Amino acid sequence: MSVIVAGPIALDTIETPTEKRDNVLGGSASYAAISASYFAPVQLVGVVGTDFPGEHLDIFRNLEIDIHGVETAEGETFRWSGRYFDDMNQRETVDIALNVVAAYEPKLTPSNKAARVALLANMAPQKQLQVLEQLESGALIVADSMDLWINSEREALLDLLRQIDLLVINEGEAKLFAQTRNLITAGHRLRDLGPDHVVIKKGEHGAMLFGNGQFFSTVAYPLTEVLDPTGAGDSFAGGLVGYLSSLKKDSLDFGDLSRSIVYGTVMASFNCESFSTDRLQGLTQEQIDSRFHEFRSYTAF
Amino acid sequence: MSVIVAGPIALDTIETPTEKRDNVLGGSASYAAISASYFAPVQLVGVVGTDFPGEHLDIFRNLEIDIHGVETAEGETFRWSGRYFDDMNQRETVDIALNVVAAYEPKLTPSNKAARVALLANMAPQKQLQVLEQLESGALIVADSMDLWINSEREALLDLLRQIDLLVINEGEAKLFAQTRNLITAGHRLRDLGPDHVVIKKGEHGAMLFGNGQFFSTVAYPLTEVLDPTGAGDSFAGGLVGYLSSLKKDSLDFGDLSRSIVYGTVMASFNCESFSTDRLQGLTQEQIDSRFHEFRSYTAF
Repeated sequence: MSVIVAGPIALDTIETPTEKRDNVLGGSASYAAISASYFAPVQLVGVVGTDFPGEHLDIFRNLEIDIHGVETAEGETFRWSGRYFDDMNQRETVDIALNVVAAYEPKLTPSNKAARVALLANMAPQKQLQVLEQLESGALIVADSMDLWINSEREALLDLLRQIDLLVINEGEAKLFAQTRNLITAGHRLRDLGPDHVVIKKGEHGAMLFGNGQFFSTVAYPLTEVLDPTGAGDSFAGGLVGYLSSLKKDSLDFGDLSRSIVYGTVMASFNCESFSTDRLQGLTQEQIDSRFHEFRSYTAF
Repeated sequence: MSVIVAGPIALDTIETPTEKRDNVLGGSASYAAISASYFAPVQLVGVVGTDFPGEHLDIFRNLEIDIHGVETAEGETFRWSGRYFDDMNQRETVDIALNVVAAYEPKLTPSNKAARVALLANMAPQKQLQVLEQLESGALIVADSMDLWINSEREALLDLLRQIDLLVINEGEAKLFAQTRNLITAGHRLRDLGPDHVVIKKGEHGAMLFGNGQFFSTVAYPLTEVLDPTGAGDSFAGGLVGYLSSLKKDSLDFGDLSRSIVYGTVMASFNCESFSTDRLQGLTQEQIDSRFHEFRSYTAF
């Protein structure tokens, strides 16, 4: 089954304690689409400026990602610039310029509309809703969120939550949105707001899945070196929706969702091993499956 | 097989955002011994002052913990006082008074010396070494450490590491002692210093086990309410050694050690559900096994 990934495509400038890269491929939808492409046919929906390099579009094309839903608008591509501190778990946004994203109104192609799984990547909830409204009914809707919108667009987020099947959110955002310091309570509260399932991402500490009376929790893959964690959460969400699409099932059970989280974890670990989407681009199915099985051996008891 | 637990027995004063308790039973050896007592015969080794309440000794006696190795010295019992902040993950030590612990020289009974498993709970590494030297050869030695000694007694700790089988250490201490920001690297480096196995405790984020080319990682048990996390790490270590003792095996494999970590995780979760050792004292084998199996269902995929 085909999955659409809708959200920001960006040019990132990333500085770590050891290295700096300018104008690399970034944006949550880019990471998620590339990650998902190892599992299922992917259609990318978003906007770039006229300055967007052709070689970045080739990255998508080479992975057979359908980019008919990627609009080129007059102006500059969305830009994000960030800096990581010594432990690589802390970062600051140095600069952000929405550029062509500001006036963008998502328009889905007929093929986009017919996708059976949709990932609404990190963007303004109003735009996530615009994508959602164009989809044919019955698609599995997964949405990712971020604190920027939790603070400024709570009503639109609540509206979105009522219409999606699975929310992916990070630890700090979950506590902020659910107004509790306890993460388990936060997961349950977010489920009560609409989605059948809630996934809380905890970065290097793993992820949790909340269902109806069901719960799954996992660690992260052990990495001895993290070169650039940018996009790890997006690669996680991409692996998750990609794996779910690959199952070609009308009805997913809790075990399917648990395994999708482990595949997301595996894809996030690859993502951290290089700058931008470099490591994600060059994977093989064997490498992904091998890490999945290695991960299982690390966590079974 | 019998396990000895050697270390501080204390009177704690604990303040959380909602409650304060004075002079409750505390000390890392108390928590660990009570936790271990659900799995195997336990012998406690330590010192108390003449002010130590008889009802606290009865707690040990009621759980059939052998306290012949607990010396009563002239003076006051070791006291610790701490305060937790709103999220219960941060605490500060308000006051600490070593009292009778300062001049204490551990002396093991013949029965103590014959134990096949020993937990050297959090105390000065010189005292951990004194206990270790009195044990009959061939016992499995597990030691717990804390940052106080990492900073001030590095040489003694290195000496200890060369003589133990398993080191239990928390996340921050592991990074500090191994001088790296990467926890996986820290685990490997600590193993290189002597112990066959290293366990890194991550509190609410679980624990990791490092062996010779082997690795196990697990999350924590999901708690919606944490009343008092004091002693959680000690209850973890107690469950770990208790379970290992219960196996009555001459040679432990990596799976045994992985399961011991899960039992430690389960005991730590009970510990957090009440002040002091209150919850730990009233458990049944069924409750422990039930939570172990519940935990397995939460983490299997």
